[in-house]
Formats: sequence, C-alpha cells, structure tokens
Amino acid sequence: MKCEIVAVGTELILGDIVNTNAQYISRKMAELGYDVHYHISVGDNMDRVAAVIKNSLQRTDVIITSGGLGPTDDDLTKEAVCKALELSMKLDHYTLDKIKRHFNDLNKEMPVCNEKQAFIPEHANVIENDNGTAPGLIIEKNGKTIILLPGPPKELIPLFDNKIYHYLRSKNENIIKSKTLKIIGVGESLVQEKLKSIFDSQTNPTIAPYAKDGEVHLRITAKSADERTASELISALESKVKAIIGENIFGYDSDTLESVVVRKLMEEGKTISIAESCTGGLISSRITNVPGASKVFTNGIVTYSNESKIKFLGVGQDTLHNYGAVSSETSKEMAIGIKNISNTDIGVSITGIAGPEGGTKEKPVGLVYISISYGNNVKAFKENFSGDRERIRRNASSKALDIIRREFL
Amino acid sequence: MKCEIVAVGTELILGDIVNTNAQYISRKMAELGYDVHYHISVGDNMDRVAAVIKNSLQRTDVIITSGGLGPTDDDLTKEAVCKALELSMKLDHYTLDKIKRHFNDLNKEMPVCNEKQAFIPEHANVIENDNGTAPGLIIEKNGKTIILLPGPPKELIPLFDNKIYHYLRSKNENIIKSKTLKIIGVGESLVQEKLKSIFDSQTNPTIAPYAKDGEVHLRITAKSADERTASELISALESKVKAIIGENIFGYDSDTLESVVVRKLMEEGKTISIAESCTGGLISSRITNVPGASKVFTNGIVTYSNESKIKFLGVGQDTLHNYGAVSSETSKEMAIGIKNISNTDIGVSITGIAGPEGGTKEKPVGLVYISISYGNNVKAFKENFSGDRERIRRNASSKALDIIRREFL
Repeated sequence: MKCEIVAVGTELILGDIVNTNAQYISRKMAELGYDVHYHISVGDNMDRVAAVIKNSLQRTDVIITSGGLGPTDDDLTKEAVCKALELSMKLDHYTLDKIKRHFNDLNKEMPVCNEKQAFIPEHANVIENDNGTAPGLIIEKNGKTIILLPGPPKELIPLFDNKIYHYLRSKNENIIKSKTLKIIGVGESLVQEKLKSIFDSQTNPTIAPYAKDGEVHLRITAKSADERTASELISALESKVKAIIGENIFGYDSDTLESVVVRKLMEEGKTISIAESCTGGLISSRITNVPGASKVFTNGIVTYSNESKIKFLGVGQDTLHNYGAVSSETSKEMAIGIKNISNTDIGVSITGIAGPEGGTKEKPVGLVYISISYGNNVKAFKENFSGDRERIRRNASSKALDIIRREFL
Repeated sequence: MKCEIVAVGTELILGDIVNTNAQYISRKMAELGYDVHYHISVGDNMDRVAAVIKNSLQRTDVIITSGGLGPTDDDLTKEAVCKALELSMKLDHYTLDKIKRHFNDLNKEMPVCNEKQAFIPEHANVIENDNGTAPGLIIEKNGKTIILLPGPPKELIPLFDNKIYHYLRSKNENIIKSKTLKIIGVGESLVQEKLKSIFDSQTNPTIAPYAKDGEVHLRITAKSADERTASELISALESKVKAIIGENIFGYDSDTLESVVVRKLMEEGKTISIAESCTGGLISSRITNVPGASKVFTNGIVTYSNESKIKFLGVGQDTLHNYGAVSSETSKEMAIGIKNISNTDIGVSITGIAGPEGGTKEKPVGLVYISISYGNNVKAFKENFSGDRERIRRNASSKALDIIRREFL
C-alpha cells in the first residue's frame, strides 16, 4: 500500500527544527510493508495544508500527518483535513473531559483555547494520547485512510508505537525485512559497477546503495507473507553480493567500523594502542566511543610535534631529519614505539598532512602514512585522501581502522 | 520570492537518514529573505521526481533539489528535471576533466559510470563542487530557477555557502544580514526565558534560537535596503542580548568552541596539553581539527587504564586506590602530570564515567571531573552529564573547552 507523510508546521519550513518524525514514521512503515512515496512539509497555512491533503489523496492509500493539532489558532491540520475531505466537526465530550483532567492533575485550569482540541471530525476514531492534550485521529473515507498525529516526538512516538502500529499492521498482509551491508574501501560508483548484474535484476528483494562518510551502505529489503521467507530471500542475495565484494563488507546494520574492530579485538583477546599525529586523537576517540573499549584499549598518544614523537614514542631524531615527520620511516617507528611503551599486542600509528597548510609538491595535503606494529613486524601503508581538513582526518581514521580489521584481525 | 526544497533519495523515504539538508537550506533561505513554502522528499523514481518538479514549477519561483546527482543508475535528479523542463543534456568536457583529475589525484582510474556526472542540461550553469565529483547546477527557464545540489551535506553545505548563497542574494532586492551568537552553559528554554522581552518584541531584526550539540545558537537577522543599516540593527539587538547573557556567548557565526580556544591560545602565546580518560581523545581531536592547532598544541595522552595513568602521567597508586580513577584527586594529578611531561603552559585532564556500564550510586554514569593545571595551581571541576555514551562524551569535551575559555584565557 502507498503512503505519504505530511508534516505541518512553519518551524519546519523555516529550518528551526529538523523533521525527525518523518524519519521515524518511515522506518516503521518500511517494517510494516507500506511503500512511502513522499514526505511533505508545509507551514501553518490553511489553504496550503488543504491543497497538500487533496493532492495526496489522489495518488496514495494512507496519509499520516504530524503536527498542527495544538490549541492555538495556527494549529490547523484537523481543520484543513476536514476542508479537503468535506467533513464537519463536533465537540467530543469524552476527549474534553480528558483534557480537563490533564490540567486538573497539574493543578491548573484548562485554558479556553484547549477546548479546540476536543473537536473531532465526523467518522474519526479518537486515539488517546497519554503524553499530551491532542489526541490522535484515524479517518477512513472512500477507501483512503488519514491518520493525524501530534507533532512533539514525545507524544507522536508512543502514540505510533502503542496504537497506530497495530492498526496499520492489521491492514497490510505483507512482512518487510531489511538488512544493511556496510562497505569500506570501495566507492559508491565502483560498488554499482561491480554489482551491476545484481542491481539490474532486482525485484524482490530490492537492493539500494548509499554513501556515507567514506562508506557505502547497501540495503537489502525483502517483502513476503512470512518472516522466514523474507529472511531467506535476503540471505540468497547477500551471498551473491559477498561473492563479489565480500572482503569490503565490514559489518551489518548498526555496526560501525570501530565497533567491529573492538569486537574482533575482544574475541581474539588482543590489546591495542594508538599513536596519532594528523588525526589528533580521532582514532582513539572513535575506538573509545564503543562501550567496553577499555577491555582492549589501554592508551593512545597524540604526538603532534616532532619533539613529542621523539620524547614519547622514541622516534629517532635522524629519522625525522632524514625522512620528515610524514614518512613511512617515521610512521613505522611511531607504531613500534607506541606498542612497546604501552605493552599491547598491536601498535598503530598515523602521520600525515591534513591541511589546509603544510603541503608540498612531494608531500601534498592528504598524504598519510599508517603503520601497524604486531609481534616483531611492522608494516607501513601509504594513502592519499582528498577534501578539506575534517574529511581527510575522518577518512584517514577510517582507513586505519579498516587496515586493522583486514590485516590483523 | 517563493521557494520549494525537493530532496531526492530512497534512503530518505525509507527513514534511513533524516533530511538535514532541508533544514540547512531553509535557514539560509530565511536569511536571504525567500519564503520557503514546501519541503518534499521523494525516492529515486524517475516518474515521481519529474512529477514533483512539474508540480512545484506551477506554484513557485525557485526550486532547490538535493541528492540524486551521483554516478549510479538510481541517481536521476538531473534526468528528471530535464524531463520536466523538456531539456536535453550534453557532455561537458571541462567537468569531465575535473572528475578525471579527482580520481587521478587519488591514484585511481575513473570508473566508467562517473562520466554520467559530466552530462549537463542545456542552459545550465555549472557550479564547481570542491568536495565531490557531482557539480551543482543552476537552470533558469521561463522566469523560474531550478538549483540542483549534491546530497551529502559535506558537499552541499560548502557549495551552498560559497556559491549558491551569493547567487540567490543577488536575485533578491533587500539586503538580509544575519549574525549568529553562539552560547554555551545555558539551555535553550532558559535562554528563551531570560530573553523573553527581546523575543516578544522582535520584528526587524528577528531573533531565533536553536539548540545544537549542547550549545544554543541565536540567529539575529536584519532586513534593509542597505548593508550599513542592517549592520546597525543587528548591533543594537546584540548589545541587548549581551547585557543579559554576555558571559555565555563564546563566539560568532563560524566559530566553534575549539576554534575560539585555539585562537585565544595563539593570541596569548600559550601552549596546552590534554590528558583524557572518559573522552578517549575527543578533546585532542577537536582541538587538532582547527587549522594551525600545532602552534599551541604539542601532544595529548589518552590514559584509559589505571596503569597508563600511573605510567604516563605519574598519578599516584595511592590516589587511585584511595579515591578512584574518577575523582577530583586523580583528575588533578593527571592535569599536573600532563603539563609537566609536556612542558606546556596549561595542562588539562578529564576523567569520568561515560557509561552505559560502570556507574554506581556514589559515582553514577555521567559523573566527570575536569582539572586544569596552570603555573603552580591546579583546579578541579565536578560535572554531571546525562544522555547516552556519545552525548556524555561530547558534552564533557565541550565543558572542558568552555572551562579553558572562561577561566584561563
């Protein structure tokens, strides 16, 4: 079934708030097997809201609105829906009593304007809101369903989860399941090229790529009458993808590169220490953002100056003089140094030029060396990144995590 | 002038990502004096995207799209706009060369599919994208303007700010000037309460608060026929705000807490070193994200284990035993230790419980000690933060930066 999500509120189109409700509802609708075709945000304007509803009714099965159910004059979603559907409203005494009790519980008198919230369109089912004075509403007319929800996420989310979800589930036969494969080390266009035959032949399950922070996320979505068939459909497609770019897949769904690295270190009972120059603490920060990281990570050192590389990591003065701070040689000595002073299984180092200053023809902005010291071995990797300082640092930290994952775990 | 913002991408209507681009662009359009009437999100579907564009063209002056300019088959915004406007496309060799150079700089061959990004609609102005391969496009036809922007915020935001903003400004007669005051240490509702009389009486300039990552940003926007009058209007309102919450204002416009700290350290010729436990490198990482940070920051140490606090910072075994790792005493010794071994003017330490595990009744999740060592003095600050691990770490790092700013610079 087709669905559209309509958010009403001038604060949205002024950019004062971001429309997280649309995201929340969309995720749930995907779970429930509805096809969301559009999100629309519109200001508190009667004619424009009514026009949006009329237009959406012509092309969709279900409309879910959020916002505009408050007590003030600029709350007009209910009124606009009634205008579009040619419905009248009447005072609902049960709802009015509930609103009065709400204020009574707060030792306050109900402001007169709140009576507006107890006016209900004819044929509407009132869905009680336990977290606010505006009830949700379900209107069914001419085979179409319009669901009106309050705007504040603290009201909308429980109302949706506890009441609307079950209603929508009972209306739809299909189960939708999805799984996201997370990919690093290969760009979106190359993923698309390598998986062309899979992309071209997709029907059920579908597969969709998107790029995020230097990663590519591949979402596989299956539709079926039962959960097991949906899972099998996903597994079959996943195997095909793995056969082609398996080594680039670092995780699934809520996994992050750092959570995968920490989990693998835990599984293997290994410890790690990090010496950072150009990323300035970003790798350590990402690793320690994972709950339980203290089991595998004891310390990191940010050696930003040459002196600190010598003093804390024991990098040779000669090495720095002969090869420079951004060199394979320096990065190797940094990795050996951090491993030795930290007494960990793995020592990681990174040194490079994040820009915007400091680049030369031989060593341009974006040049980064990553070294891994493990046992008696040390291995250096030379990388080039593009973009601004933040992007170079971010992508360099991802590359280091990916090297740890691929080579040493 | 009327405007609509159209976001293209199946990941949006599936709820995989939230549409922050619409918010970003809306804020800027409000500054520029344009009236945004609708936000629309639509999936990667040729017919539906083209239908949206056609429909919007009938009722608006300016359409801004985001997303769908990538190299893959499901990137189809450009094609859909051409379909709606009945425009043809041709290969733009300058753009193609730029894309090839981009891959060349990365020592990679351009994938064949990227050639798609160099096809440009007739009459379109190509707006170079310094952070990706998809250029922005401006199309003017029959008095309407359609602006196509890439989806990733890291590409869209600089493209908009550096190029589209000026173009849109030149199309509108009124000068709109705005200034953002950045506030820390006081929540959005308290800001609103303290500044109530200012908020209630706003007309020109307007003032709008929004909360972000534990900060409150207050945007003052003045509309006028000339730049000077607009500046004077802003200054007058800014003075009123400063009289009430001046000490909470840490910067303006593109300032960040870390850029303000680095700038002040530079001005005073002081150096700083950081010892982090719970934030795991986040403070060092934020400081080193500021270009030129190497002039004031030499090194940081992430001492995640007790052993590393003893070994690297010289924290007393007794101190850890008697008071624990999360204590005023330990944090003070960490700050003294990092300052001494780093030989800097200021030593900063942070230790706390970021959760979700590790909290007790006496020392709950969110408890954080921050110490600053300066000259022969050391001062500890006890703080409590709420939220999940990421939020606690983020807000703790901001608090540390704010303490440095307020107390020692």
